[in-house]
Amino acid sequence: MTPQTAIAELISAGELFHRRGWVPATGGNFSARLSAEKMLVTASGWHKGELQEDAFLIAGMDGRPDDASRKASYETLLHCQVYRFDARVGSVLHTHSIANTVLSRQKESIRLSGYELLKLLPGIQTHDATVEVPVFENDQDIPRLAAKVDEAMKRRPGMPAYLISGHGLYAWGDSVAQARHRVEALEFMFECELHSR
Amino acid sequence: MTPQTAIAELISAGELFHRRGWVPATGGNFSARLSAEKMLVTASGWHKGELQEDAFLIAGMDGRPDDASRKASYETLLHCQVYRFDARVGSVLHTHSIANTVLSRQKESIRLSGYELLKLLPGIQTHDATVEVPVFENDQDIPRLAAKVDEAMKRRPGMPAYLISGHGLYAWGDSVAQARHRVEALEFMFECELHSR
Amino acid sequence: MTPQTAIAELISAGELFHRRGWVPATGGNFSARLSAEKMLVTASGWHKGELQEDAFLIAGMDGRPDDASRKASYETLLHCQVYRFDARVGSVLHTHSIANTVLSRQKESIRLSGYELLKLLPGIQTHDATVEVPVFENDQDIPRLAAKVDEAMKRRPGMPAYLISGHGLYAWGDSVAQARHRVEALEFMFECELHSR
Amino acid sequence: MTPQTAIAELISAGELFHRRGWVPATGGNFSARLSAEKMLVTASGWHKGELQEDAFLIAGMDGRPDDASRKASYETLLHCQVYRFDARVGSVLHTHSIANTVLSRQKESIRLSGYELLKLLPGIQTHDATVEVPVFENDQDIPRLAAKVDEAMKRRPGMPAYLISGHGLYAWGDSVAQARHRVEALEFMFECELHSR
Repeated sequence: MTPQTAIAELISAGELFHRRGWVPATGGNFSARLSAEKMLVTASGWHKGELQEDAFLIAGMDGRPDDASRKASYETLLHCQVYRFDARVGSVLHTHSIANTVLSRQKESIRLSGYELLKLLPGIQTHDATVEVPVFENDQDIPRLAAKVDEAMKRRPGMPAYLISGHGLYAWGDSVAQARHRVEALEFMFECELHSR
Repeated sequence: MTPQTAIAELISAGELFHRRGWVPATGGNFSARLSAEKMLVTASGWHKGELQEDAFLIAGMDGRPDDASRKASYETLLHCQVYRFDARVGSVLHTHSIANTVLSRQKESIRLSGYELLKLLPGIQTHDATVEVPVFENDQDIPRLAAKVDEAMKRRPGMPAYLISGHGLYAWGDSVAQARHRVEALEFMFECELHSR
Repeated sequence: MTPQTAIAELISAGELFHRRGWVPATGGNFSARLSAEKMLVTASGWHKGELQEDAFLIAGMDGRPDDASRKASYETLLHCQVYRFDARVGSVLHTHSIANTVLSRQKESIRLSGYELLKLLPGIQTHDATVEVPVFENDQDIPRLAAKVDEAMKRRPGMPAYLISGHGLYAWGDSVAQARHRVEALEFMFECELHSR
Repeated sequence: MTPQTAIAELISAGELFHRRGWVPATGGNFSARLSAEKMLVTASGWHKGELQEDAFLIAGMDGRPDDASRKASYETLLHCQVYRFDARVGSVLHTHSIANTVLSRQKESIRLSGYELLKLLPGIQTHDATVEVPVFENDQDIPRLAAKVDEAMKRRPGMPAYLISGHGLYAWGDSVAQARHRVEALEFMFECELHSR
């Protein structure tokens, strides 16, 4: 994936998420893998629904920007963790919706069962399945949080996405398009759960 | 109806449904009858809010694409069933909304009564009516599901639309415009039901 | 008000109401007074969020189109009633929202109290007021329904707007702008009521 | 900040708030500081989602328009109070959302705790914090209300924003962008609170 294509697709994903109310203020952040060693990631402080070309920077898989004068999104290490854990992942998207915030503050994991849209998640072929999306406690120490996520993924390699309590969703896919579709499917099922209580 | 007109109207219906949140990820699919023998239907895998001309293919009433190299939407046989059941049907639209998903997971049929918008449904002239929208259990075996729907329609020829549990709404009309208006009316009444509990 | 100005303002009100979900399918209808004797009103069957210039026709205050070949909105007589009751009224707008539909099916009148936006309603200068919006039973016999509304207004001349059960809101103002602002204020307070239960 | 830049940023904030439904009818008002002595503020009666250049006027910190023939927003003195209280404030934004209206009618203050977006508020570095947004009783006597707010701020200098019961949110920041991000963050957390009950 060229940086130009990745930028265009991430800007457009951000505009959709903004219309939906999933990236309020400076919430959320997005990335795409450029190679085995490099990723494109949103810079700190931008509104994710109003991204422009200079809202993106290139960083290594340790989260360090190639241009040391720039500052990557606060949670860049959480993106790195996913890319390092699974070499097939091409994009990681973090959204901050009302549904995912409310549910993540109330539960230790979100159990999704019987939804047709479960088929959008990795390895699932039927609605007749149950998926657990784990909720991690929020932590301002991002390296520590990334390590906890990594540990949990190692224990359970098929984790399809995860939530951070009061903070939002991390989802991913082979491409920006697939990651975006998974975000849409997960946010949809979260809203259904919210309206089913 | 020419393919060009049908494509334009289905693209525009998809954009509206997307703004409303009724076609998340790759959910939903749309079709229009071109003749007694042929239909236009969305291809597999497209986002239904971002359709372009090549998102459509022509298929027979058995669901087989004229161009064997292409892949029609997974649920094309459900569209075929409606066209074969009633020769007046000009368009079938399937949406995947939060309201229809939540209700269809909780009930065996949705009873709509006393709404002015009931008058949008076939054969209804007054709000002072009751309509039952049946809910079919979801099934990844689409021919089997289509057969069940067909059987139910034969038992009850006036069925105005139906739901599949956790999966969405199928509605239809003489034209794309009429089918779209019925989707809007049904989704509206489903949301009212959701907010009336 | 010239027909051209009225058409432009009503089209734009319809687009706003459509984005909000207040005119599903062919629901709603709009009018503006052109003179003591004539009004501009939406033609039957149009989607009120997608109006074009030929969606409007000119009718007398008895609801009869000047061009006898055209068909005015089904509920035109309800617009006529308001124009005849109060010569200052310049526009009548009917919306069909989820909030007004749900509330109007549950209550005989909606009591609005303590809202800053009450100040948008006729004759109200403070939030510290209470307004009753009456709910009329729906009726497919529009002349009979219009007569009932007229009777109620004569008994209570300050009625600011009214609802028809399962069918929607009628509001009005000196101008299209004022009528539209009142619709926005009333729909807002209805949604607040819905979320306050 | 030049008047031109301030106008462009406030128009764009208004368009966003309108899409979200936070400035119904003529609700809400916006301002930006131009200097130690002068502010730009929305004129009375405009729809805050459809602002144009002549919707703004320049006023002193006592709320008096430089051009005495014009009329500033009804609540201009509430903006003045914030600018006079804190010389660093560059913009004050008042929104009128369903969530803030419903909550402000039910509670004496809104307690926000554990949200990642708390970090958008002044002086907060972690989600692991609790913020109280006070609710003032509504009052049509704006000088009296402004005096009450001023007194409360003097007692509690770190107040991040406040609500007026049934009327809406006042938030501010060093710049229009920062004030807008705080409005987005607060409205988001209010909606979460509304959906958490």
